[in-house]
Amino acid sequence: MEYTAAVITISDKGARGEREDTSGPALVDFLKEKGWNPIYRAIVADEKEDIKKELIKCADELKAGLILTTGGTGFTKRDVTPEASLEVIERLTPGIPEAMRAKSMEITDKACLSRSVAGIRDESLIVNLPGSKKAALENIEAVINPIKHGVDMIRSEGSNDCAG
Amino acid sequence: MEYTAAVITISDKGARGEREDTSGPALVDFLKEKGWNPIYRAIVADEKEDIKKELIKCADELKAGLILTTGGTGFTKRDVTPEASLEVIERLTPGIPEAMRAKSMEITDKACLSRSVAGIRDESLIVNLPGSKKAALENIEAVINPIKHGVDMIRSEGSNDCAG
Amino acid sequence: MEYTAAVITISDKGARGEREDTSGPALVDFLKEKGWNPIYRAIVADEKEDIKKELIKCADELKAGLILTTGGTGFTKRDVTPEASLEVIERLTPGIPEAMRAKSMEITDKACLSRSVAGIRDESLIVNLPGSKKAALENIEAVINPIKHGVDMIRSEGSNDCAG
Repeated sequence: MEYTAAVITISDKGARGEREDTSGPALVDFLKEKGWNPIYRAIVADEKEDIKKELIKCADELKAGLILTTGGTGFTKRDVTPEASLEVIERLTPGIPEAMRAKSMEITDKACLSRSVAGIRDESLIVNLPGSKKAALENIEAVINPIKHGVDMIRSEGSNDCAG
Repeated sequence: MEYTAAVITISDKGARGEREDTSGPALVDFLKEKGWNPIYRAIVADEKEDIKKELIKCADELKAGLILTTGGTGFTKRDVTPEASLEVIERLTPGIPEAMRAKSMEITDKACLSRSVAGIRDESLIVNLPGSKKAALENIEAVINPIKHGVDMIRSEGSNDCAG
Repeated sequence: MEYTAAVITISDKGARGEREDTSGPALVDFLKEKGWNPIYRAIVADEKEDIKKELIKCADELKAGLILTTGGTGFTKRDVTPEASLEVIERLTPGIPEAMRAKSMEITDKACLSRSVAGIRDESLIVNLPGSKKAALENIEAVINPIKHGVDMIRSEGSNDCAG
């Protein structure tokens, strides 16, 4: 089975070309190292409807096994990535953001400010990551191994609980 | 006060008699050891409406103090126990699944894949557990002691916050 | 920038004058020590509509940067502070209650019974705390430093992710 992935950078400045997107390429490299095939990359502004459109495209058209977002998980008025994600996710996977934040809390107590959510839409797993390259990599590193098993489960037949 | 409990196994194969339910009996034994009185057991298929019906029966008719489910918390299309639970729960108790996952993460990082939820319906506490016997026991072991205090609180008069 | 805060005690007995509110004043003292300016204090009964009214007043009229509630996060029928909060919060900040419970779990496993939620309404951060003075202080102590950064972010222009 091929592990396909999409990476969506969510940033007003990135979308306007005013800031170089370093998190997106870093996540693509990270995914390749871990045996994933990154099939799609995009940069969108912090607009809920635009984010939803990208997530739906990656899940319903491209059928990416894993869809990572980076950015828009903070506290400013423009940070709406979790809200966009919650509107397209069909089944939440709360243990993934919990594990990411718990791991990041070992590095900085600001990790508790990440509003990331994760969940399943059809046969895709959507995972929000913070916008900074360092934090995004730390977060995904904490869960990438079990996520592979999760994506296997999504595509399998019948029910089967995690071994945890 | 009597601590009554119900155990619902959620499994397509179990409901069809194609797989022996080992988690349900193990949870019943565990509850007895911990001073609970298991008054009801059932096996249902991974169908949201069937799961909801069982949960409502255990809460509204049998008035079990604690309702444990095992199974259906994973990532396959058939895993809908959390979704069924969310539709019948009146007040969420997020600290319970958080504590179960945090404890299980010490054993395996796949623990973050459990989509378990927990919450209160009327005078009953509903707690989702994974389907595997090992994981189900590990999860409930992590929270059974505080849960007794929680069930006491549900039935008490007036407001009273946890000591945590 | 001034860090303004409001403290709302939620307690049937406190509202009737049958129990002295020790948590509210302790939180006011704690906030002052940490460089916050407590501009408002109230005691309300465990009634969802009354709690919502206070939260909306603190956010929309008083524009407090931080709104702390103490009480009503437990399992009794009267405990509805999280439900009231969820109805007025616009964007959830799940990492804050996760961090508070994880920290409190180091002290007592009853910490998993706290049903606290937190989130943003307009330019205010709402955080539920348990009712007991000891638990309320333990909980807020665990997150007060990153929260200051969070409140800065809420009022800033543009998007910006937490460093976590």
